[in-house]
Amino acid sequence: MSTKLRYLHHPASQPCRAVHQFMLENNIEFQEEIVDITTDINEQPEFRERYNPTGQVPILVDGDFTIWESAAIVYYLSEKYDCSSSWWGSTLEERGHIQQYMHWYAYTLRLGGGAFHWTIFAPMIYGYDKDFTVEVTKGRFLLYESFDILEKYWLKDGDYLCGNTLSYPDLATCQDLVSHDAGRIIPTSMWDSHPKVKAWFARMMDREHAKTVSAWQYENVRKYLDDGVKLNFQRKTAVLKGTEVYSGHNNGIIYNGDDDSFVTQHG
Amino acid sequence: MSTKLRYLHHPASQPCRAVHQFMLENNIEFQEEIVDITTDINEQPEFRERYNPTGQVPILVDGDFTIWESAAIVYYLSEKYDCSSSWWGSTLEERGHIQQYMHWYAYTLRLGGGAFHWTIFAPMIYGYDKDFTVEVTKGRFLLYESFDILEKYWLKDGDYLCGNTLSYPDLATCQDLVSHDAGRIIPTSMWDSHPKVKAWFARMMDREHAKTVSAWQYENVRKYLDDGVKLNFQRKTAVLKGTEVYSGHNNGIIYNGDDDSFVTQHG
Repeated sequence: MSTKLRYLHHPASQPCRAVHQFMLENNIEFQEEIVDITTDINEQPEFRERYNPTGQVPILVDGDFTIWESAAIVYYLSEKYDCSSSWWGSTLEERGHIQQYMHWYAYTLRLGGGAFHWTIFAPMIYGYDKDFTVEVTKGRFLLYESFDILEKYWLKDGDYLCGNTLSYPDLATCQDLVSHDAGRIIPTSMWDSHPKVKAWFARMMDREHAKTVSAWQYENVRKYLDDGVKLNFQRKTAVLKGTEVYSGHNNGIIYNGDDDSFVTQHG
Repeated sequence: MSTKLRYLHHPASQPCRAVHQFMLENNIEFQEEIVDITTDINEQPEFRERYNPTGQVPILVDGDFTIWESAAIVYYLSEKYDCSSSWWGSTLEERGHIQQYMHWYAYTLRLGGGAFHWTIFAPMIYGYDKDFTVEVTKGRFLLYESFDILEKYWLKDGDYLCGNTLSYPDLATCQDLVSHDAGRIIPTSMWDSHPKVKAWFARMMDREHAKTVSAWQYENVRKYLDDGVKLNFQRKTAVLKGTEVYSGHNNGIIYNGDDDSFVTQHG
């Protein structure tokens, strides 16, 4: 029986690309399975039941053990394959700092992914006649605020986000910026006013595996922007779930605003 | 020189209460410093410069080392004080599963905190004449979707969120539900249709330290709901930053929609 890891992913997803790059950087062998999220395959009940109740990728299947959420997958792989401690920190303080980054990122820069999503993919999903101005503006605020904190805080003293050594935050963040860069979301003025971020991104994109895992994204987003070639996106499981008008994300759980029988459980 | 930990927090904050409970559960000594987030003290440049560029609490100062983001603080403390491995998992699979929880939570249930925030605190911050219907509805969608996944996935096989042992996800999540419960955000029908969540919350609130750290929240939110006693909230640094109309969160970084000179860096 094969014990090879199954990696379920799609190259349009930032977290998928980050995990993918991590496995390539660490020579971890895996069997690649593309989940075609341009269809709604990951929205199907059997997919959610079998792999992930949220319907999201990436997903790693290691024998009987299934794990999702990109940062958790990498955390698991790092320990299982005894990867360099630098990915998650070599000292107590570094480990704390890297965890701090991953949670800061989750609430800021990752949600700024909306700037890309609502500009490029949302019209393919919800229709070109829809107005995503509010969503795009919010995404840009989060993204640009994050740029400022990357410049002034995370990249203040080192060549990488958590010091002078490459760690997982660099891969995760690089693959977020790949989408924004491919989609021409970040104005020249924003890059130029954040020179450390600009230099860091160039440093990251010099890595062979960063290029490999982001090729699909650059190619397809450019085909769309430059030649009008659309993708047949039907997927509605996206990063800003529930927070936006077009999210379609409530999994059928309708809030009944007329239900006012709020009886508290404690206190 | 005292080496006592400084814990900067406020009991109105879910993540602050979770870290606080963790320290009490583990008999970790600390010096408590309330950051009065009902004022705008945490919005001040000197506060951001000294402690946390996002202006958020909780913050832990351990000598020369400062760390923020609640989950990172607990991760750091767990290692530093050699706390029980059960907080973050005792096996490879458990550790992966708990990381998976913490990231799932960040993108779902934690953002569902908006259901409480926009119902109870936002009017105190932005004005009682403002309409937060859209924000409240989005928060409820995320919260109720999370309830469903708690019931069907996380609590499927155990008494706690990541198995049959208490782990940090239980504290973090309990303190989110404390706010919703205090604010009467969760209808009776929602509790009753999610019996495992209901029983788990009761189990958590039986813990002495869960009661201790949540007393302020229950008391003040009830004073407001039942007697109209408002808090003088001015703080705008909240969980759903940048994603909502009233966020006020862009730190002065204005998106210039007229800047269309998007020159890509790669590809």
